[in-house]
Amino acid sequence: MTKITVLAGGVGGARFTRGLLQELANTDAGSSVTVIVNTGDDMWLDGLRICPDLDTVMYTLGGGINEEQGWGRPDESRRTSTEIAAYGRGWPWFTLGDLDLATHIVRTDLLRSGSTLSEATEFLCRRWQPGVTLLPMSDQPVETHVRLAAAVDEHAAGDLIHFEEWWVRYRAHVEVTEFVQIGLETSTAAPGVLEAIRDADLVILPPSNPVVSVGTILAVPGIREALRATRARVVGVSPIIGGSAVRGMADHCLNVIGVETSAAAVGLHYGSRGSGGVSGTGGVSGTGGVGGVLDAWLVDETDAAAVAELEAGGIRSAAVPLWMRDVSSTAAIAREVLAISALV
Amino acid sequence: MTKITVLAGGVGGARFTRGLLQELANTDAGSSVTVIVNTGDDMWLDGLRICPDLDTVMYTLGGGINEEQGWGRPDESRRTSTEIAAYGRGWPWFTLGDLDLATHIVRTDLLRSGSTLSEATEFLCRRWQPGVTLLPMSDQPVETHVRLAAAVDEHAAGDLIHFEEWWVRYRAHVEVTEFVQIGLETSTAAPGVLEAIRDADLVILPPSNPVVSVGTILAVPGIREALRATRARVVGVSPIIGGSAVRGMADHCLNVIGVETSAAAVGLHYGSRGSGGVSGTGGVSGTGGVGGVLDAWLVDETDAAAVAELEAGGIRSAAVPLWMRDVSSTAAIAREVLAISALV
Repeated sequence: MTKITVLAGGVGGARFTRGLLQELANTDAGSSVTVIVNTGDDMWLDGLRICPDLDTVMYTLGGGINEEQGWGRPDESRRTSTEIAAYGRGWPWFTLGDLDLATHIVRTDLLRSGSTLSEATEFLCRRWQPGVTLLPMSDQPVETHVRLAAAVDEHAAGDLIHFEEWWVRYRAHVEVTEFVQIGLETSTAAPGVLEAIRDADLVILPPSNPVVSVGTILAVPGIREALRATRARVVGVSPIIGGSAVRGMADHCLNVIGVETSAAAVGLHYGSRGSGGVSGTGGVSGTGGVGGVLDAWLVDETDAAAVAELEAGGIRSAAVPLWMRDVSSTAAIAREVLAISALV
Repeated sequence: MTKITVLAGGVGGARFTRGLLQELANTDAGSSVTVIVNTGDDMWLDGLRICPDLDTVMYTLGGGINEEQGWGRPDESRRTSTEIAAYGRGWPWFTLGDLDLATHIVRTDLLRSGSTLSEATEFLCRRWQPGVTLLPMSDQPVETHVRLAAAVDEHAAGDLIHFEEWWVRYRAHVEVTEFVQIGLETSTAAPGVLEAIRDADLVILPPSNPVVSVGTILAVPGIREALRATRARVVGVSPIIGGSAVRGMADHCLNVIGVETSAAAVGLHYGSRGSGGVSGTGGVSGTGGVGGVLDAWLVDETDAAAVAELEAGGIRSAAVPLWMRDVSSTAAIAREVLAISALV
């Protein structure tokens, strides 16, 4: 009856969790998994509340994901998006598929009617049956923005733009000076989040973006403290293999907070739980650390040289194959997480 | 430079106005047309504000209507609607096409951001260029409901249900005892509405539903009085031909307010402007009359016997072909409206 809690962003966290569920189905059918999902990428678009990471996890675990692109639904049309653009509305660089759109419409309707994001998420999951308890990190809106280093298009130097605009429109290829997370400091963890960390046997940081996904979750007041205090083992999986991001553009985010793009640097950025506060700055700002959060950190077999450095930093480490090529190879990674958690 | 104002519901009013515009293009290119549209059928569905009559008029005049069904856009998919239904939301009997959906999303976004319905309508019309000034009858929400005579499905006898549910789900085939228009008494005419009636040379009541379309517009405080006071001629076109509704189910609505389904009865229900208040009960309740609103009333050639009855009631009348088979035959009806308006 192992209780496992995963702190996830979008695609990486979703795919890792799918592998974890397969592994558990084979080895520990009585286990239960809670996934706490980053909501810092959430946004309003055309009056609809979009929650990219929640939906990616829900669709991936519920069998409704577009496997090729990693987000959205398969075989979607852009007809409604195109119509919205014909009115001069929306963001031309961010289109909503016609099937995915229904999720946003239903969620927005629920939120406008007074439901919390937790309640709306639970409602949506009744359809998708993801096989986990899916929790937003917070019910309060937290929106990650980036501050532009230089003028670009209609934006001036120093302007804040939504993370999704930087990420999707500019593919993170314009320089930014900092992340600004509107609403973060006054947010509180959603119902069940702190309990899921406290009562877990194992907490996993999957290969999600360490800055704007896991870093954002860690920065919600109370969550880092819960990770430091839990009796659970805390094991992370490096999203960096051989000096570059497995997927996405985590390197651009790491650059912004001054962390090297390497498996060792990211593990040490999260820091050791045993460090008593001297290491561990892992978070979106890179300076908010109040002690590390990791017991163990898996790196890819090609990063075996990082193991000694991590262990010198108080973090148990092992080098194992970390490419999530398919569900089966991802289940093998989850098996390594379970294995190392038994050693710490 | 004739100024013409039309009081319209959905399909009938939209198609009539399209014919009117063709007639004016040929004979009076300097004229201007304002269409005041019923908003009593408006509703919230899945958190989106739906304005069936405004959209039907806008699409019809802007070249975006589904000609066959008379509402919505051509070649739409129901994929998003089907997804919403998969969540157990929406009304299974009322689906939103994927193209039409964009209009509702943009309008709702504008309304939620503080725009009035007039402003949102003006914004949407920038795309569609309907060739008229399109005005909602009111910026305040007015929603027509019907009171059920007997229990049906999940509703009890005496329950109020939204007009669209009665109309679309039950095809008006369950008995109702009255129309109840929530918000009507405290509503005010939208900006420009009373002026468009006051300053017109000609006001036209097209073959729209006399109870829930034109009747609702007339019941907005101030509109009937404006029609009584305007220097314009007021000419109506019968939506009843040979004892039945040209389109839709106006007979069911007329039954509810105790008016016979005949061209003469509907004309007399609107009443003569010259009657000084003794005739004219035209409105949704059938009892709200404070004097009639018509100078003239066109009936179909098959209803020629009604002409004498109407003229005895103080309403100039003529029997002419009233079937709107296509734009050209509809333009001919508009020509008859212009002709009779010159005689009163």
